Amino acid sequence: MSEKNAVTIRRFCFGEPVETDAVVVQLPAETGPIPYLQVTKGTEDAADAICFSFRMDSKDILFGLGETVRGQNKRGHRYVSWNTDETMHVEDKASLYASHNLLLVFGRNRVFGLFLDDPGRVTWDLGYTRTDEAVMISESGNLNLYVADGGSLTELARAFRRLTGRSYLPPYWSLGYIQSRWGYASEEEVRRVVREHRERKIPLDSVCLDIDYMVHFKNFTWRRDGFPDLGAFVQEMRKEHIHLVPIIDAGIRTEEGYAPYDSGREQGVFCRREDGTLFEAAVWPGMCCFPDFLNRKAREWFGAQYRPLLEAGLEGFWNDMNEPSLFFTEEGIRDAFRRAEEQQKHPEDYEGMWSTKNAFNGIQNSMADYRQFYHEPEAGKRIRHDRVHNLYGAGMTRATAEGFRAFDPNKRFLLFSRSSYIGAHRNGGIWMGDNISWWSHIELALHMLPGLNMCGFLYCGCDLGGFGGNVTEDLLERFLQLGVFLPLMRNHSALHTREQEAYRFSNVETLRNTITVRYALIPYLYSELMKAALTDGMLYRPLAFDYPEDERACRVEDQLMLGGECMIAPVYRQNAWGRMVYLPEDMLLVRFRSAADYDLIPLEKGDHYIDLKPEEFPLFIRRGCLIPLSEGGEYTDMLPETGFRTPGWDAEEAEYLLYTDDGISTAPKLEDHLRKIRQG
Amino acid sequence: MSEKNAVTIRRFCFGEPVETDAVVVQLPAETGPIPYLQVTKGTEDAADAICFSFRMDSKDILFGLGETVRGQNKRGHRYVSWNTDETMHVEDKASLYASHNLLLVFGRNRVFGLFLDDPGRVTWDLGYTRTDEAVMISESGNLNLYVADGGSLTELARAFRRLTGRSYLPPYWSLGYIQSRWGYASEEEVRRVVREHRERKIPLDSVCLDIDYMVHFKNFTWRRDGFPDLGAFVQEMRKEHIHLVPIIDAGIRTEEGYAPYDSGREQGVFCRREDGTLFEAAVWPGMCCFPDFLNRKAREWFGAQYRPLLEAGLEGFWNDMNEPSLFFTEEGIRDAFRRAEEQQKHPEDYEGMWSTKNAFNGIQNSMADYRQFYHEPEAGKRIRHDRVHNLYGAGMTRATAEGFRAFDPNKRFLLFSRSSYIGAHRNGGIWMGDNISWWSHIELALHMLPGLNMCGFLYCGCDLGGFGGNVTEDLLERFLQLGVFLPLMRNHSALHTREQEAYRFSNVETLRNTITVRYALIPYLYSELMKAALTDGMLYRPLAFDYPEDERACRVEDQLMLGGECMIAPVYRQNAWGRMVYLPEDMLLVRFRSAADYDLIPLEKGDHYIDLKPEEFPLFIRRGCLIPLSEGGEYTDMLPETGFRTPGWDAEEAEYLLYTDDGISTAPKLEDHLRKIRQG
Repeated sequence: MSEKNAVTIRRFCFGEPVETDAVVVQLPAETGPIPYLQVTKGTEDAADAICFSFRMDSKDILFGLGETVRGQNKRGHRYVSWNTDETMHVEDKASLYASHNLLLVFGRNRVFGLFLDDPGRVTWDLGYTRTDEAVMISESGNLNLYVADGGSLTELARAFRRLTGRSYLPPYWSLGYIQSRWGYASEEEVRRVVREHRERKIPLDSVCLDIDYMVHFKNFTWRRDGFPDLGAFVQEMRKEHIHLVPIIDAGIRTEEGYAPYDSGREQGVFCRREDGTLFEAAVWPGMCCFPDFLNRKAREWFGAQYRPLLEAGLEGFWNDMNEPSLFFTEEGIRDAFRRAEEQQKHPEDYEGMWSTKNAFNGIQNSMADYRQFYHEPEAGKRIRHDRVHNLYGAGMTRATAEGFRAFDPNKRFLLFSRSSYIGAHRNGGIWMGDNISWWSHIELALHMLPGLNMCGFLYCGCDLGGFGGNVTEDLLERFLQLGVFLPLMRNHSALHTREQEAYRFSNVETLRNTITVRYALIPYLYSELMKAALTDGMLYRPLAFDYPEDERACRVEDQLMLGGECMIAPVYRQNAWGRMVYLPEDMLLVRFRSAADYDLIPLEKGDHYIDLKPEEFPLFIRRGCLIPLSEGGEYTDMLPETGFRTPGWDAEEAEYLLYTDDGISTAPKLEDHLRKIRQG
Repeated sequence: MSEKNAVTIRRFCFGEPVETDAVVVQLPAETGPIPYLQVTKGTEDAADAICFSFRMDSKDILFGLGETVRGQNKRGHRYVSWNTDETMHVEDKASLYASHNLLLVFGRNRVFGLFLDDPGRVTWDLGYTRTDEAVMISESGNLNLYVADGGSLTELARAFRRLTGRSYLPPYWSLGYIQSRWGYASEEEVRRVVREHRERKIPLDSVCLDIDYMVHFKNFTWRRDGFPDLGAFVQEMRKEHIHLVPIIDAGIRTEEGYAPYDSGREQGVFCRREDGTLFEAAVWPGMCCFPDFLNRKAREWFGAQYRPLLEAGLEGFWNDMNEPSLFFTEEGIRDAFRRAEEQQKHPEDYEGMWSTKNAFNGIQNSMADYRQFYHEPEAGKRIRHDRVHNLYGAGMTRATAEGFRAFDPNKRFLLFSRSSYIGAHRNGGIWMGDNISWWSHIELALHMLPGLNMCGFLYCGCDLGGFGGNVTEDLLERFLQLGVFLPLMRNHSALHTREQEAYRFSNVETLRNTITVRYALIPYLYSELMKAALTDGMLYRPLAFDYPEDERACRVEDQLMLGGECMIAPVYRQNAWGRMVYLPEDMLLVRFRSAADYDLIPLEKGDHYIDLKPEEFPLFIRRGCLIPLSEGGEYTDMLPETGFRTPGWDAEEAEYLLYTDDGISTAPKLEDHLRKIRQG
């Protein structure tokens, strides 16, 4: 596949790859030598494994891998693509919820990219064992390897996106502020959340419902005690310009008389063990079955389950627990209990005590369980789950999106998932999983953004304020200041943690003011998001993409290019009253306090310390550019589409091409929706 | 207590405080109002609790609390003084291994300090619940509160040190590089470690022995299979200019025939339950008893146990597991097993499964166990352990130091402990506990340094390379670059982690070069350490101590003043090839590659981006100052005391007062050991 910009992508096929739905362009498999890579077969642990490796210059920079820990530059760690329900996103974790097997190598004398389309376990030793070597291991040895070169970082990323297909388009309203918390269990609670925001004029567009809206956490049910008439409540909220966004989990409770279980079992859509019996594991609802999302019929069945909720007027969902997360299986606990009984005979043996503890701790998401069930993509063709594990969340997203399309092919629905694989970016957005109320997780979200964008996940965000742990007011404020720029701007927190809705804190005005900036920026953010989606571009880019000749810029970890005109540089340190920013060119600093209150300060290329009081945050606009800034509003329905202010520096001659559309149609054409914005 | 520099410290007494050995000056208890603080009695959970609070201005900065997570500025978190064997030093942890109840409040209009001499549980809500309020809670309500004001930050810190007594003096040799690893189990292994260093000319002065040198982890034993003649091996190593530094744990295995157990039981030195039976809990050796370090006789007994090892020629030890860490008690596991049995009846109930898991996880260091045993400081006076929990490690350090003094009062021994309390700084140093091979733990060590210095712990350091987890070569290099400046410079790692001795890596020359810088700096570092110790000063200070009028400087979190002449600013980010540094005044950059290879670059006050290749690290010398730089050497015995190079900028007229002594005497007088060093 050769792009006009001279990027060439070649496919190399190893073993018998599984159909992953990752690419939309079928390239012929090439033989001949693989550029850049050494290839060897087998490892100590896996005879079938295929290892790819390349030597690195000390200055090589690696971008990609989407949802992973550490910096924008992925060098210096060993990552493992293995979708995992992981609650501690600390810097030595190998795996999070997603597998995004895309890597761009940016060297002084060569720039190339790799995509390992392998839904099984893939290891990325990127200068971990040896600082000067990268080694990628496909454990099964069955994969399609795509190698691209011949262009810039930006061109390489775009070429991979052409290969993997157009990004999901979110509805306009989903760029509004979303309030969420594990625990909202009734209309009354939701009404109160909305009222508290509206009374204080804190902008709000959506409220997410976590598992508590369901009957015993069973998918596609809602508790009548909390929501006696869901349809009426959905309409009531729409009148308040609020969208309800319920959660759906992967597992279906095994309970006779529960319609999804009965129909799913009848239609044979659940994953089975080798002996043909249903595979069951405990998740929130108790013992569950797991739809076989690799199978078209199962996807259709699952997608159809949303229909009553869509008919009730719901227009958005989030899909969770779809790695899939397994609390335990019967075998798992049986083994742990057996271990405990054994241990009781030797109570003094602390090593045995530890293995007993580990036995109980290890029953969750155990590899043994992932090897116990099978998918059947087509009749008679069975694949053991661990071979395709990383596709499960993507399959759920696909099933859901296909269900939406079947319900109304002309309407965009909101959908974001926890687990994903490349390809899922065509069907929905993602959030970055269960982060914690840590300052380092502001920075981590910033680091993940460009990697996710590279893989096509434009609509994405992290749980603002942090999901686990207890937030402080200053942390929430700085989290929201990043959130202003995230396509998915959601405040979400876990049960039993400190309540963190914006109205819970003493300086509510500051928090509100921050959110007003989001609404002032929505026309610009939506415009840039849609342009990126419709041109296979990235909304967020490492500075290296735009300033590849600037060595300082290429190593900046805590700033990102935003759209065609801007750069962001959030404060992510507690008690900081400012930060250093490196400007790779002259830029206009917009120091925001609210949509209406900001400073405009021209700054020349170079290092600058920017004073940023706790309530202040910066946006940088390239000299010669302008951006449209709306007056804002309390919800997206009321955002004006004209009358923008147009901050810029030396931008008298500049024009900004603003993308606008109805916010909901599924097949917009870029050229039909652009209009010029100029200063004055 | 009124200092010549106008600092006043007042003591206020609440309830019936326990003797903690924290202070060396007995101040009369004052009545009357307590300056700065509101005092209230009782909390929801504890009727006897005393709460102290004060309002904070948005710009107030808080320093202190010694060994705690987060930044130099302690504002914005809730800390709990409760000594804990904690393996995950993440930013929301409330407690680590030590309790250092000292806080300095640095405001625009007021500077004051607090020391809560309370060995029980103390909570520090420093802008966590409300951003503008600090609340300190003594759970028991029994404490001496010391309030100081009337001077600068430096003067306040010095006044508290006068109150709490002179810092421990380490032997000169202990400033050498120390190699350590959990797992060294024989002479042969130690010889190899030494040989690998010596062959590559990597400087080395000491090797730490972790628990594996003992017979079944029993204190004061050594395995004859590994160390057939300890005395001979100690002497052999001394000829190689190597000190062996064995570990000693807190617990004494309950095993009849094992001399320490037999004699300890006979002499009644172990902690007992309410019913008078010995309290036992499992630690490394299996079931153990715990010496009652609050009791003089028990301390004497424990100190005397070191005698055979001292007679064998050992001159240094590290004390571990002295929070005390308890793996479990019999009651603890009995309850967990009971929970598991109950759960087996309801295997589908995942909430029950989680409480079963939690039951097993919770048996370690459980509060229930800490409430089951008693101390008896003097006959007939019993105190339940949880009331004095935070003194245990300090008591062990005291017992050990008293044992050393009894053995040879004129000689300094190396001693560093994991757990501590203020007062222990007179008897030994500390390390920062079981960190991880994380980049963020370089920064965390930097953050802890000034707080530890404030509390008198001058001889301190972190496990370079990280204890838990797997190091990478670049991480070890940057860790060592910080370690060059840490009084305790130890590379230490855990069993089953990647081996991280400097010679294990491909760029061993770089790692060696870094360590050579340490040896070039030892004369200066030792001089400044001894001057700080003998004048109750701090070796490391936040920039606010030296530049209180410079608002930028006061908020710098990742730089520290070192001694009278220098500032450090380590690189702590992976893949960074430099960093921003704020110079609060003109300084000379010394960019080190090795003891012999460095750049000298004068830099003016302000912000500077410093290029720092992976093998380069900076030291900044104040303009007009000079420091002595030795040629270095492979061990401290061979370090020259003359012939220094004297880098400085505009330092032609400057003189540096170098402190030198025999490195081993216990009562040096500052004025007897200073000599002037000048340029040229």
